[in-house]
Amino acid sequence: MEIKVLKDILGANEQMAERNRQLLDSNQVFAVNLMSSPGAGKTSLILETINRLKGKTRVGVIEGDVSSSLDAELIAKQGVPVVQINTGGGCHLDANMTYSALSNVPLQDIELLLIENVGNLICPAEFALGEHRKVLISSVPEGDDKPFKYPLMFHQADAVLINKIDLLPYLKFDTQAFSQAIKGINREVEIFQISCATSQGIEQWVSWLLTQMSMKQS
Amino acid sequence: MEIKVLKDILGANEQMAERNRQLLDSNQVFAVNLMSSPGAGKTSLILETINRLKGKTRVGVIEGDVSSSLDAELIAKQGVPVVQINTGGGCHLDANMTYSALSNVPLQDIELLLIENVGNLICPAEFALGEHRKVLISSVPEGDDKPFKYPLMFHQADAVLINKIDLLPYLKFDTQAFSQAIKGINREVEIFQISCATSQGIEQWVSWLLTQMSMKQS
Repeated sequence: MEIKVLKDILGANEQMAERNRQLLDSNQVFAVNLMSSPGAGKTSLILETINRLKGKTRVGVIEGDVSSSLDAELIAKQGVPVVQINTGGGCHLDANMTYSALSNVPLQDIELLLIENVGNLICPAEFALGEHRKVLISSVPEGDDKPFKYPLMFHQADAVLINKIDLLPYLKFDTQAFSQAIKGINREVEIFQISCATSQGIEQWVSWLLTQMSMKQS
Repeated sequence: MEIKVLKDILGANEQMAERNRQLLDSNQVFAVNLMSSPGAGKTSLILETINRLKGKTRVGVIEGDVSSSLDAELIAKQGVPVVQINTGGGCHLDANMTYSALSNVPLQDIELLLIENVGNLICPAEFALGEHRKVLISSVPEGDDKPFKYPLMFHQADAVLINKIDLLPYLKFDTQAFSQAIKGINREVEIFQISCATSQGIEQWVSWLLTQMSMKQS
């Protein structure tokens, strides 16, 4: 009986996510759901991405947090439209929260919507938001065993960004073993090694993102 | 109506947690609930703590993970009794899971039970397990803004361990601002700066832990 209820919740979320996707498509907006552990670098990646796309692609952001609007304030300074969702204790965004946020996003003025999910490697993987791509940021200090511990998140991702590679000299982290573990769970996934501190790998990530957007348009 | 259901769940959990606490007390076992983001260093801290307490205090461990038993295997190598809980998607331990695990822990043979919760800064804070102390590990690479974003977890903790301080030279992290933010949420909390890589600060942490245990006994 409990399982039945959960199915209904996820079914209802899926329907609302589809509605969000239609709204985004009708406005020709490409949406990316950014997920990671707390502090893996979602906001830093958004700032780097906005910076690279300046004058090329108009970006909007939805910021998901349990509480505070610290990240939204950082992003607003870049002159980009940003809407904050505070879940008030909830450990993930869902399609309904996203729908509410979308009515405050100027969809006609943007081409790319970056949605920063709540920092959590578990539940966000279960709730579609209407996004076109799911991107997981996994940072070097978290360790190379994470694909075994949080398999659903790695299974769902279209791309995994290995962030904070500037810290590789100071930590035990086997990039090859990590990448192999991810590929074992998700053969099609794209993997990028990046550092938001040094900007290493950001160009490759942004180039992939633009390709995904153009594939969607054509 | 939804709030009513949640209250019932949390109420039922609280009752079961109390039952666990009585079981632990009747066996004179002191239990610590260790919580953190994924990869902040819960398992490393457990290994360091076991190492320091060898010959002094008999330790047992309950390992909580969404999946895998990698950490339990590492701990078992230390010759310490360890019971693995796999939540199968669940993002936190609860008192009922802990009760099931306790029946497999040799309570008469141990004095200290370390419970490693699922890697998550949100939901574990809401579910008591029957522990005597809640300990939060927050690592330097996660950034110094975490108390504002995950206030409940910092509010609940009896101690916060700032782990990976060996990485301070390579990261922007204001230890003083971080500690002040924590104290603003939770005036009574103990804060320790540690590194499981260099063992810095581990002695102070273990000393605090032993004091807490002896306060409980007396």
